[in-house]
Amino acid sequence: MSSVLLVNGPNLNLLGQREPHIYGAETLADVVSRARVRAEALGLKLDARQSNGEGEIVSAIQAARGVHAGLVINAGAYTHTSVAIHDALRAFEGVVVELHISNPLNREPFRHRSFVAPAADAVIAGFGTAGYEIALDTVALLLARG
Amino acid sequence: MSSVLLVNGPNLNLLGQREPHIYGAETLADVVSRARVRAEALGLKLDARQSNGEGEIVSAIQAARGVHAGLVINAGAYTHTSVAIHDALRAFEGVVVELHISNPLNREPFRHRSFVAPAADAVIAGFGTAGYEIALDTVALLLARG
Amino acid sequence: MSSVLLVNGPNLNLLGQREPHIYGAETLADVVSRARVRAEALGLKLDARQSNGEGEIVSAIQAARGVHAGLVINAGAYTHTSVAIHDALRAFEGVVVELHISNPLNREPFRHRSFVAPAADAVIAGFGTAGYEIALDTVALLLARG
Amino acid sequence: MSSVLLVNGPNLNLLGQREPHIYGAETLADVVSRARVRAEALGLKLDARQSNGEGEIVSAIQAARGVHAGLVINAGAYTHTSVAIHDALRAFEGVVVELHISNPLNREPFRHRSFVAPAADAVIAGFGTAGYEIALDTVALLLARG
Amino acid sequence: MSSVLLVNGPNLNLLGQREPHIYGAETLADVVSRARVRAEALGLKLDARQSNGEGEIVSAIQAARGVHAGLVINAGAYTHTSVAIHDALRAFEGVVVELHISNPLNREPFRHRSFVAPAADAVIAGFGTAGYEIALDTVALLLARG
Amino acid sequence: MSSVLLVNGPNLNLLGQREPHIYGAETLADVVSRARVRAEALGLKLDARQSNGEGEIVSAIQAARGVHAGLVINAGAYTHTSVAIHDALRAFEGVVVELHISNPLNREPFRHRSFVAPAADAVIAGFGTAGYEIALDTVALLLARG
Amino acid sequence: MSSVLLVNGPNLNLLGQREPHIYGAETLADVVSRARVRAEALGLKLDARQSNGEGEIVSAIQAARGVHAGLVINAGAYTHTSVAIHDALRAFEGVVVELHISNPLNREPFRHRSFVAPAADAVIAGFGTAGYEIALDTVALLLARG
Amino acid sequence: MSSVLLVNGPNLNLLGQREPHIYGAETLADVVSRARVRAEALGLKLDARQSNGEGEIVSAIQAARGVHAGLVINAGAYTHTSVAIHDALRAFEGVVVELHISNPLNREPFRHRSFVAPAADAVIAGFGTAGYEIALDTVALLLARG
Amino acid sequence: MSSVLLVNGPNLNLLGQREPHIYGAETLADVVSRARVRAEALGLKLDARQSNGEGEIVSAIQAARGVHAGLVINAGAYTHTSVAIHDALRAFEGVVVELHISNPLNREPFRHRSFVAPAADAVIAGFGTAGYEIALDTVALLLARG
Amino acid sequence: MSSVLLVNGPNLNLLGQREPHIYGAETLADVVSRARVRAEALGLKLDARQSNGEGEIVSAIQAARGVHAGLVINAGAYTHTSVAIHDALRAFEGVVVELHISNPLNREPFRHRSFVAPAADAVIAGFGTAGYEIALDTVALLLARG
Amino acid sequence: MSSVLLVNGPNLNLLGQREPHIYGAETLADVVSRARVRAEALGLKLDARQSNGEGEIVSAIQAARGVHAGLVINAGAYTHTSVAIHDALRAFEGVVVELHISNPLNREPFRHRSFVAPAADAVIAGFGTAGYEIALDTVALLLARG
Amino acid sequence: MSSVLLVNGPNLNLLGQREPHIYGAETLADVVSRARVRAEALGLKLDARQSNGEGEIVSAIQAARGVHAGLVINAGAYTHTSVAIHDALRAFEGVVVELHISNPLNREPFRHRSFVAPAADAVIAGFGTAGYEIALDTVALLLARG
Repeated sequence: MSSVLLVNGPNLNLLGQREPHIYGAETLADVVSRARVRAEALGLKLDARQSNGEGEIVSAIQAARGVHAGLVINAGAYTHTSVAIHDALRAFEGVVVELHISNPLNREPFRHRSFVAPAADAVIAGFGTAGYEIALDTVALLLARG
Repeated sequence: MSSVLLVNGPNLNLLGQREPHIYGAETLADVVSRARVRAEALGLKLDARQSNGEGEIVSAIQAARGVHAGLVINAGAYTHTSVAIHDALRAFEGVVVELHISNPLNREPFRHRSFVAPAADAVIAGFGTAGYEIALDTVALLLARG
Repeated sequence: MSSVLLVNGPNLNLLGQREPHIYGAETLADVVSRARVRAEALGLKLDARQSNGEGEIVSAIQAARGVHAGLVINAGAYTHTSVAIHDALRAFEGVVVELHISNPLNREPFRHRSFVAPAADAVIAGFGTAGYEIALDTVALLLARG
Repeated sequence: MSSVLLVNGPNLNLLGQREPHIYGAETLADVVSRARVRAEALGLKLDARQSNGEGEIVSAIQAARGVHAGLVINAGAYTHTSVAIHDALRAFEGVVVELHISNPLNREPFRHRSFVAPAADAVIAGFGTAGYEIALDTVALLLARG
Repeated sequence: MSSVLLVNGPNLNLLGQREPHIYGAETLADVVSRARVRAEALGLKLDARQSNGEGEIVSAIQAARGVHAGLVINAGAYTHTSVAIHDALRAFEGVVVELHISNPLNREPFRHRSFVAPAADAVIAGFGTAGYEIALDTVALLLARG
Repeated sequence: MSSVLLVNGPNLNLLGQREPHIYGAETLADVVSRARVRAEALGLKLDARQSNGEGEIVSAIQAARGVHAGLVINAGAYTHTSVAIHDALRAFEGVVVELHISNPLNREPFRHRSFVAPAADAVIAGFGTAGYEIALDTVALLLARG
Repeated sequence: MSSVLLVNGPNLNLLGQREPHIYGAETLADVVSRARVRAEALGLKLDARQSNGEGEIVSAIQAARGVHAGLVINAGAYTHTSVAIHDALRAFEGVVVELHISNPLNREPFRHRSFVAPAADAVIAGFGTAGYEIALDTVALLLARG
Repeated sequence: MSSVLLVNGPNLNLLGQREPHIYGAETLADVVSRARVRAEALGLKLDARQSNGEGEIVSAIQAARGVHAGLVINAGAYTHTSVAIHDALRAFEGVVVELHISNPLNREPFRHRSFVAPAADAVIAGFGTAGYEIALDTVALLLARG
Repeated sequence: MSSVLLVNGPNLNLLGQREPHIYGAETLADVVSRARVRAEALGLKLDARQSNGEGEIVSAIQAARGVHAGLVINAGAYTHTSVAIHDALRAFEGVVVELHISNPLNREPFRHRSFVAPAADAVIAGFGTAGYEIALDTVALLLARG
Repeated sequence: MSSVLLVNGPNLNLLGQREPHIYGAETLADVVSRARVRAEALGLKLDARQSNGEGEIVSAIQAARGVHAGLVINAGAYTHTSVAIHDALRAFEGVVVELHISNPLNREPFRHRSFVAPAADAVIAGFGTAGYEIALDTVALLLARG
Repeated sequence: MSSVLLVNGPNLNLLGQREPHIYGAETLADVVSRARVRAEALGLKLDARQSNGEGEIVSAIQAARGVHAGLVINAGAYTHTSVAIHDALRAFEGVVVELHISNPLNREPFRHRSFVAPAADAVIAGFGTAGYEIALDTVALLLARG
Repeated sequence: MSSVLLVNGPNLNLLGQREPHIYGAETLADVVSRARVRAEALGLKLDARQSNGEGEIVSAIQAARGVHAGLVINAGAYTHTSVAIHDALRAFEGVVVELHISNPLNREPFRHRSFVAPAADAVIAGFGTAGYEIALDTVALLLARG
């Protein structure tokens, strides 16, 4: 049974509270729990981790090496500024899916650059919190494809 | 029964022949036929259109107004240069999903700008031709959400 | 009796349907018909052509050589991207007036560059669809001036 | 009877003397007088003001608040450098038409930026001194439209 | 008894009339009079000057040399364009506080550059018209610090 | 009794030791203690937090939601690089004052961009450590204004 | 006997009529006919195609796959704007020679970028219409080289 | 006997008082008086004008038309920002020498652009106040050359 | 006996595992242990610290003040993004050597900017893990030079 | 009998030794000797000069004035950096052909700018060493055309 | 008796032959000989050197150290590209005057940057070959001033 | 016994005379002689070459092919401007170490670009003249590593 790590970056712990017109009204717990249901349906084990700290996210990605077959990352604000997360993802051998709740290209210019993208196999953006389930579907698909 | 228009832009008619290491070995006919199967499973009617002409794509999008509830567009090279397609999409009232087989952010700099993105509800990139089926799943999801 | 070609570019066939708060509620047929009335009052013959295709607009401008004394062009989105239309206008010997319903300088940055401007004698922008009649007045004026 | 203020900026008092191949041979007095004739024909009262000083132009625009229903401004060189004139125009409640004798987009790059444009309802450029009469026609048209 | 010059730049004479949602509803006279009360409470003599003219503001700053111990300047639009005011402030030996009613960094890009900043000891922005009193408090503080 | 959170970012714990010609000779403890005196005089409760970690500052700002009515933040170096702090501040409902001891616009170019500014109500810079007391005065003022 | 496709882009059908001081006085028919003579002398079959439409040029290049051994392209204005033509050329397996009658690097800045160049084996520019014959010579040479 | 106008721009009335390490200790009166002595020695009549106002400088340059054979201009800060002075100089038919006491290219970047240079016949910079005399020598030389 | 702090930034704990074609096959423990041998040979005490957290690295550098005479820092990804580390290094009074295993100028553009460089006495790059020993040699040399 | 100067710039003396996958395996002597054969066949006298020095190339071009009717220049690296060679070519009255073995537009960005191009009549690039013979053919052609 | 070195850079040996409408018709020998007459009148010894080679100019400037009291340099094209000449001038202890026959700011953009300027005391441009005599006058003046 | 070429570029012959606060007081002869001692201790033969000429340095690097196993280059000012030296280094098969006495990244912006870096195996900067010995140590190390 394959295992997937779901990484949520800074401020995603506020999901459902912060700017609900952009991010929707569900809490992160709701979203992770729905994601877990979907993962199980797909025969995947799901580990979820949220952190506001860049270094902690780097460490979490490093710890996924040799443990998880796939990694879904919504790096939040660090998407646009973190070379360190980029480097950690480059060192991960499994499948990487970049996830955004909204579409960053439709927001402020400083959200248009992604340091995650060049280290990711694929990207999903703009589907709201449903994107978490789609991301798991697509990890399953990419793992199946080999 | 809702209806969806699938628009494929320039050179996508060469799918399976051109740069298979990037785009995979299936032909566009294969991909559209798989997409049709998935659409039917989702209770959606699928119309598919490919064109190498910017003006023809603009006209196809215009013709979708009042006819289709959703639109999946892989605008190919026009993604990066066409303000006209941008304007046509802005005039379409339904759901719009931007689709790319590879992830343009990992290719040449002139593929990093998207005129489709600001007129799209969501974007899917980097899943190979499987992205077509994911795109239909997500249109269904966005239509269901209302 | 002098003759004028009125060229309308991509998406202008949607006039009255698309973003009426920007472009007004009249259809292109209404606008062209009002323009024809004004042309006749000015002693001018009016030919009108709309196309979503860049190449077709290039061909229409080429065909105006030796036939029309003036050309009013609302190139829509191609204003901002088409070097080919620029080149075709350069090859036209008559009077050229660039026309915009809204003022592009007050819209998105990608609408701030005009490839029509350096090939036009004059520009009119921001008068809504009344601009079509003003454009004909001014063509008459420029033709009279010789 | 509506009233319109015509503002001419720096060096326009040299009209007819300076670079006649660009600006034509009429003096500013000639042009204003022709504009006055046209204004009367349109049932408009015309006040005209020329100044080489940025601050004086700001003050003139401020003084038009509550007095004039429309304002035609050829801000000359200040078009490209004056945020203060921009701010004054923003505070004027009536119709604003930006006017240029030549087309600034066809001249030096430092004339390509307009601080007047984002505070104007419409723009007319490249019609020589005939632009003054067209500007009045269009103010009348915009006032009539309400 | 120390003396302070308060300089208000272009369009600040419209305070209370222009864009009240940004600048508040008080007139400049109200604000200056409240500032004078605060200055007296701080043991400071207040001279206030408003001008729409860049040159007049330069002259006012020059005249403050050897007369005033401090200078509070809301240079309005000239903040972003005037090297001449920059140079005049550089020649003033006393304390200089740059003041803005709103925060220019949250407005249009052309308001992001300040030629006043590199010639000012400190900056206060975004406190509405209360900023005038805060500015006087802080001039007193900077003068006391010596 | 309202409560205010004072956040000091990286290296501000070195206050009084590092580059005293720029930042003054007082320690952070001195400054916080003076700030606390002023807060009490204003009828405000003051919580103070310093951290060198971007993630910890994000978490501190998040924890202020529903607890503090105002937030004074000297984000130090993170002012110029942290989109995560920007996002956390956007999620805080109270008053936000951006504070700098020196004026960043007069230092190296990489200190000219502020990610705090667009999420702050106001900014105070260049008053040395006295800025902390001024910041509290102005928070009181902004809270009183409602 | 090898076969070569000669593609001429927008406005080249005006050759001999438009700006003869830049492009010379021969018509496109003259030039193609001279090219055909040269091709025959080189033992090459020549197909020639001109179009003002970007999509038609894309389709023509696609149709050359498996049919022509070499392709000479004067893409005219599309040289500088067309990613779609770039992609089509990338999918062509034969020899590609980029041709310009004048030297684009000596004309307007918007003609300095070439999307054809990175997909071409070689480039010839500035030889007037004689460049067509030189291009055929060099295709022969590149084909001979294998 | 030829006549020359010497124009000094903003803050040059502070000469000898402001930043003497850059501009030297003489007052403007001293400098003008030395310039007058030199002018007389050269058989030239010298008129001198200083103003802090951009509009007044524009008017002074306009008034020189048909009166003065040469014009020496130290436009101070307006050198770097004034398109209006550029336009006025373009309308002056005589010899124009641009003068700077220090070398602007060795100062802040915002002093590196000159709107005077493209309207001047020659430039002298970095000779301190001796540059005024050199400027008159060179005007005499340019007038003699015809 | 002088003491030196060796700081390794994010992902350097993966040394020997991540991209060995770039960074070599030794682990960080191997490298630090070889560095310790060299330090002892040079009569230096070596403390080594690795962290994935920007804030922890800032704190480690602060803690080196008054304790270590020299500091060797391979800041990894934070080299290119951290103003906070820059500020902490500026506050360190000893010798600072910037170290990179590969040469960042030969990698992606986002690795071309260094915030460490302007706060470092010297830089060593491209020598693989041998650079650690060279860095210690050079710290000894710089300390000896005084 | 007309005479042509062939100038080869820095490192072209290494032809056949350096990066043969880009430049081919022939030596410069081989290439020049093949060029001489072609020149004779065309009735042209060929002088060839290679130098690694910018100044020597400038002097060689100067010496060609009044001696040679045409000049073929492969300026190598100086193509991208030498304004001095540009100026020398501008002073040569004969025909100038710019030659490159590979296509610089397909190599590093610092090879995309050409200071030779604006001083050349035509350019040939990407034909390998066969370009030398093509260049001579085209010089003959341009000389014949007059 | 003080001594001055006059350095002329690449292509200035063509003076009188190349682009006489820009540089005048005198040869360099004429100009140097007139300069020598003026130098003698000023009590200065003049050494003159022209070279097309950057390295030779660097060596000539180095050789002037301890020998010449002043240096007049018209570095021609190297003005815009040579950091090496900049460094050599920085090492010269005497007076440096930068000289240009035309005004580079009125020519192509690549002539707008000067590496000589930041190492020069003053600059003279646009006076034609008379600038050589003016330069000597001003060296005398700067030497006299001490 | 391996052999190493030490190349010193323009103005390094002035070492010890020019800006000693940046480069130290030793002459180039001193430095080379110390380098020779170190080379011998490492079992390396050292050839040293200094030139102010770009072309001579190119030739020296070419001559090192097949003769020297390593090359240490302090290209001085040419580091920042010479594509020709870049190309010559690319053609050298041995080890290349880029050397700078000071750290160019801490000096003027025009010294921030290095054309040597992408052709060098490693870089050493900021160690003063001791860098020469470190460079030899590291060449030995890189040669030993093979």
